Amino acid sequence: MRISDCEFKSSPQSEIRIPHPAFIGIRMRDWIALNMTPGVGPRAAARLLERFGSAAGVFGALRSELERLRLRPEAVESIALRDRHEAASEELERLRAMEGADVLVLDDGAYPTLLREIADPPVTLYVRGAWEACLDAPCVALVGSRRCSTYGQNVSLMLARDLAARGVTIISGLARGIDAAAHRGALEASGRTVAVLGTGIDEVYPREHKRLASEILERGGALVSQFPLGTPPVAENFPYRNRIISGLSLGTVLVEAAENSGSLITARLAMEQNREVFSVPGNITSRNSFGTNYLIKSAGAKLVQTWQDIVAEFPPDIAALMLPPEPKKGRRVEPVAAPTDLSENERRVWALLSTDEPAQIDALAEASRMPVQELTGVLFGLELRDLIRQLPGRCFVRKL
Amino acid sequence: MRISDCEFKSSPQSEIRIPHPAFIGIRMRDWIALNMTPGVGPRAAARLLERFGSAAGVFGALRSELERLRLRPEAVESIALRDRHEAASEELERLRAMEGADVLVLDDGAYPTLLREIADPPVTLYVRGAWEACLDAPCVALVGSRRCSTYGQNVSLMLARDLAARGVTIISGLARGIDAAAHRGALEASGRTVAVLGTGIDEVYPREHKRLASEILERGGALVSQFPLGTPPVAENFPYRNRIISGLSLGTVLVEAAENSGSLITARLAMEQNREVFSVPGNITSRNSFGTNYLIKSAGAKLVQTWQDIVAEFPPDIAALMLPPEPKKGRRVEPVAAPTDLSENERRVWALLSTDEPAQIDALAEASRMPVQELTGVLFGLELRDLIRQLPGRCFVRKL
Repeated sequence: MRISDCEFKSSPQSEIRIPHPAFIGIRMRDWIALNMTPGVGPRAAARLLERFGSAAGVFGALRSELERLRLRPEAVESIALRDRHEAASEELERLRAMEGADVLVLDDGAYPTLLREIADPPVTLYVRGAWEACLDAPCVALVGSRRCSTYGQNVSLMLARDLAARGVTIISGLARGIDAAAHRGALEASGRTVAVLGTGIDEVYPREHKRLASEILERGGALVSQFPLGTPPVAENFPYRNRIISGLSLGTVLVEAAENSGSLITARLAMEQNREVFSVPGNITSRNSFGTNYLIKSAGAKLVQTWQDIVAEFPPDIAALMLPPEPKKGRRVEPVAAPTDLSENERRVWALLSTDEPAQIDALAEASRMPVQELTGVLFGLELRDLIRQLPGRCFVRKL
Repeated sequence: MRISDCEFKSSPQSEIRIPHPAFIGIRMRDWIALNMTPGVGPRAAARLLERFGSAAGVFGALRSELERLRLRPEAVESIALRDRHEAASEELERLRAMEGADVLVLDDGAYPTLLREIADPPVTLYVRGAWEACLDAPCVALVGSRRCSTYGQNVSLMLARDLAARGVTIISGLARGIDAAAHRGALEASGRTVAVLGTGIDEVYPREHKRLASEILERGGALVSQFPLGTPPVAENFPYRNRIISGLSLGTVLVEAAENSGSLITARLAMEQNREVFSVPGNITSRNSFGTNYLIKSAGAKLVQTWQDIVAEFPPDIAALMLPPEPKKGRRVEPVAAPTDLSENERRVWALLSTDEPAQIDALAEASRMPVQELTGVLFGLELRDLIRQLPGRCFVRKL
């Protein structure tokens, strides 16, 4: 699915959330316990849920049924003994005591719609701050190398600022380099930003981003994580974080990445999740741009020059709110005469275009009986000379 | 037509050229006179040749026939009076006196095959230097801004050097900036380079490239132009030069170009000529890379990171001579075991791949029942982890 096919909805949490706090507590506890169960990652959790329907169902299952699911022995043991329920109760207490903290579970209406759509979504999402407002807006992930160049840092800041100023929530991973610049750009525009953590939401990694994390919370942003409170920064957790970064977002923008950068993995995850992947080109002599250029060249990532290139791929109704309106059409204007210095082919194509009705490239190819590649060249030439304008969907109109 | 569909042949000049010098002289004179006729550019010449078959035919035509072709009055007048024939004779004398100079005409077997294929090819091509050896090799055009950055200059030099070292002839326009760097890169590699001029082949523009032009001639390169001897640098002639640059080449590489750069026009001409268009990305904060990034984003130009990206689009037999050979297949090697940390989807795709038989992406999509975009993501992930290799035509094999 491309972004433009995605139906974008705000989460209908208010209608669906079940009001009785005691019941919610019990239900929550099962989910949190499931998330804490040793040997149960998102993949095993998905297998369990497919079989038993809910966290409560999992904990009500017979040991023999569990054993048939090829789980690790310690997982079967833990579920059968419900040995994480006490820790889960404590977790809920601690969450209640933490200002602005909450936990969303998979069968909760508040769980982010886009994240639920990925394969094996995390069963719990710990949140802190203004997560509802942040995730209700269209979200874009900006990611890239920790060891980035000044160019990468500037571009990350600029794109985040430009997007956030137009109501887009910037999702990133609170890491050094590109991530931090993305969060800061959103804050500079007084926009929204969400930091997805590989630790618990009560931890901050790296330590020097403690102030940045506080600022995100204070200024209308949010922290989210799938990991229980107190989870320290463990290398193996960060790939899970990356799945959430791309999973929460309509699209992921790779700002800068060297050849073997972990950010390329996030881009791959976004592709696997059928989300749009964008990439910022850079000098081919810069090792920090190797990965981003490669992604455009070999993996079909969309090249980004400005924030508009990202918004243009949003679902049309959202894009329309952010992109400058097309010139008014109401009053008829005298059509511009064909310039006299057009080539034969240009004249042919020009004659097929109007100022009012966009013509699609396939229709033009048929009407002009030109091969599409040649036609593309002619259209591009007319566009370069500012005679025509390209609209989304490879449609073309004459300029007034 | 894509490059890879082009049949690439050396010009069969030796078989076709007609040996009797007197006759050649007469035939040549007609072509040169036609090329010198006022009001007859390549487009009018093409109309005349379509109607009368050859330059001799044009000059044998009745005035009334000429008038029916909607030529400019001065063109009709000049052709009817054959008033350029004396100048053409002098031109031939001067060419004979100039070391290594010659003129190729449209019906001559020596006329470059690729150039003949474009719409309205120039009727004469003045050449100087080792043009046969240069044009017998696969040719690539490198073009870009005159006012370029150091980055652009370095990249032009580097790509030209890398390509020329592998036997590719570098075509460019002898202009300041990117063009000069391209010629110099080819010379550095002791390779071949052709400067296409907007002046006569006895003039050099800009003046400060006089030494460069001599060096090109001395070191096995060539100068070519469609314009008569002594033609001074006139702005309106340079677009004609650009058509020849792209027309002689299998593909055109745009190295650096600002928003309204003339080099974008050369890229457009290459597209209209159905030749491959390549573009070198650069920092989005550099105005010199605006045009090159835009061409990748909006006009389907192929992104270039290294010389291999250009050669990979050559016809397969030529590319094979330049690209590193695939590892030998003869001896059977034990297949690599599937890595244990693959995802479900990765395992599925891995199982469909072999080390010997390339699998095409559409076949993989069908066999794996995965949508192509998702499959692309999975394949890209396997490629990133160095487990598989992509071959031309979106085919994939396991790495050994």
